[in-house]
Amino acid sequence: MLCDRVRMDAYHSAVFRNPHHFRGKVVLDVGTGSGILAIWSAQAGARKVYAVEATNVAEHARELVRANGVADIVEVIQGTMEDIVLPEKGESCRFLNPCYICSFLNRCQTFEIDVIISEWMGYYLLRESMFDSVICARDRWLNPGGVMYPSHARMWLAPIRSGLGDKKMEDFEIAMNDWNHFVEDTQAYYGVNMNALTKAYRAEHEKFYLKSSIWNNLHPNQLIGQPAVVKEMDCLTATVEEIREVRAQVTLPINQDRTRLAALAGWFDVHFRGSKQNPAVEEVELNTAPDENGGTHWGQQVFLMTPAPRVNEGDSINVSFSMVRSKENHRLMDMDITYELHEASGRKLPAVATKIFLE
Amino acid sequence: MLCDRVRMDAYHSAVFRNPHHFRGKVVLDVGTGSGILAIWSAQAGARKVYAVEATNVAEHARELVRANGVADIVEVIQGTMEDIVLPEKGESCRFLNPCYICSFLNRCQTFEIDVIISEWMGYYLLRESMFDSVICARDRWLNPGGVMYPSHARMWLAPIRSGLGDKKMEDFEIAMNDWNHFVEDTQAYYGVNMNALTKAYRAEHEKFYLKSSIWNNLHPNQLIGQPAVVKEMDCLTATVEEIREVRAQVTLPINQDRTRLAALAGWFDVHFRGSKQNPAVEEVELNTAPDENGGTHWGQQVFLMTPAPRVNEGDSINVSFSMVRSKENHRLMDMDITYELHEASGRKLPAVATKIFLE
Repeated sequence: MLCDRVRMDAYHSAVFRNPHHFRGKVVLDVGTGSGILAIWSAQAGARKVYAVEATNVAEHARELVRANGVADIVEVIQGTMEDIVLPEKGESCRFLNPCYICSFLNRCQTFEIDVIISEWMGYYLLRESMFDSVICARDRWLNPGGVMYPSHARMWLAPIRSGLGDKKMEDFEIAMNDWNHFVEDTQAYYGVNMNALTKAYRAEHEKFYLKSSIWNNLHPNQLIGQPAVVKEMDCLTATVEEIREVRAQVTLPINQDRTRLAALAGWFDVHFRGSKQNPAVEEVELNTAPDENGGTHWGQQVFLMTPAPRVNEGDSINVSFSMVRSKENHRLMDMDITYELHEASGRKLPAVATKIFLE
Repeated sequence: MLCDRVRMDAYHSAVFRNPHHFRGKVVLDVGTGSGILAIWSAQAGARKVYAVEATNVAEHARELVRANGVADIVEVIQGTMEDIVLPEKGESCRFLNPCYICSFLNRCQTFEIDVIISEWMGYYLLRESMFDSVICARDRWLNPGGVMYPSHARMWLAPIRSGLGDKKMEDFEIAMNDWNHFVEDTQAYYGVNMNALTKAYRAEHEKFYLKSSIWNNLHPNQLIGQPAVVKEMDCLTATVEEIREVRAQVTLPINQDRTRLAALAGWFDVHFRGSKQNPAVEEVELNTAPDENGGTHWGQQVFLMTPAPRVNEGDSINVSFSMVRSKENHRLMDMDITYELHEASGRKLPAVATKIFLE
């Protein structure tokens, strides 16, 4: 968080240009890390800030809160959003969860928080699956009329040109070549035939070099067509069900001549718009699209198309996209991408399907 | 294992130059990986080989065993040494552990295995703590008169010169300089004082740059004095208790003039000698000491002395060494190294104590 100026600037602007959301309010910072968003919330006038952090970094957050003179406002709580109980009302409810008496009297458990602020976004928005905790926090604690920071998020997909595909293909071929030498040597020197593992070795290295999503900070001139939105999310209403599986059909028109579709690239943006009842006075955007002035630590994710088809201006790519959580680790993502190239001439090429792993 | 020629050659020689240990015998390979030691044992004439592997690599081992025509001899078992039961005798005992009836009749559980072969050595011999599983296997299954491959192991410590200390100190200073700029910027641009974390940041980075053991393949001419053995182990009798905590007092005579004690270096060797009752006909050594012809994937571990004292021929270093398992992760090691420099003139310098983390 702290060393990414684009990110820091976006959150800083969102908070300090919309002090009406914070003044006198109760704020919850989900995954506070070193506590910077909680401190800003306090500086912007919050009456109370709960800063929740699962890891031992909570101790650093406590130190920073003290050193910045907001210890009377910011309360750092170490724990997961799913397990903790906010102490605002009904202290006894720490031990009774849910406390039926308090629930009946509407004294605790819910309706505590005016603003939930969180920097929960992972690579291509959803990697790490941290938004689950934000949803949990929102459903348990956010007041009706409460505001989410950020309030909206979108995932983008775009066709790009890139030398990465050729480079990775070369690396893959070198790895297979080395393996073949190794198999020969092991037979010659040590009398063991390793060839039975060649298929598994090839599959593993093909996944590593060609089917793994690649972090890259692209230049905008690498885009060879129109980006499209594959997912749009209102943070006030999104459900875990809805983000567990992202599916979209999009058409990406190509706007460059005589080039190759080396890859599709994915990125996201989020907006700080407040809510309908309680809108931002100044809307702020955090955009992780390709940017000639550098970019963010998120960069973009590159999904290689191998082999890379030749494309021309006027062609379009019909993409069927799905992203689900990996069965082995729910914080990682498995993608299925199928594309059909529709040439400007009217000719349609056969569909090509690729698996991509965001690990 | 497979790409390290020194390692492969040592195990290959040990097995094939001592076929009397294998011919008609029952062998257990602890942590077989892709199964190479098990296959060699079968090729050397073993009657039966159990190849135990905890991870899914067991499936690869099975394929290799089949492809090399030793599936009737090598049985790959997926599981940990602590949990599995060898099926050699008394199949029913898979479900009764220990089976009192069989134990009474001396039919199963123990006295199964003639040779335990294993490539269990980690960085500086004991990192990974995999020898625990070998001890478990030995105590449960090895016949009286059985043989361990390898049979003996030693840990070495030596004084060295190296540019690594200056390099790491520079990296550390750059990191602290960056941090200080970051603290200034965060105050100036975002109104938050991060200085409360400076102490923790310094401690963490001092540990990372200066107090973490460094992997290196040293050249023999970097040795500036006599190496000494800090631990000697008979694999037939060693106990977990004995390796949980390694302590030694050694004297390292300096044999180079006008140099600096940049670091102590640690490495190990193992020997394949068979046992007293059943010795090897040809003893084999696997040595990971500094070697001008390259080295092994283990390299050596470098423990920086910062600041590095000036030393001369005739000086000697009295070292008090201890290595224990890390409390957080028993596969990692924490070292306490205290040294006293005794100059040739007779002057003794004050003791200097350092903590080193082998992570």
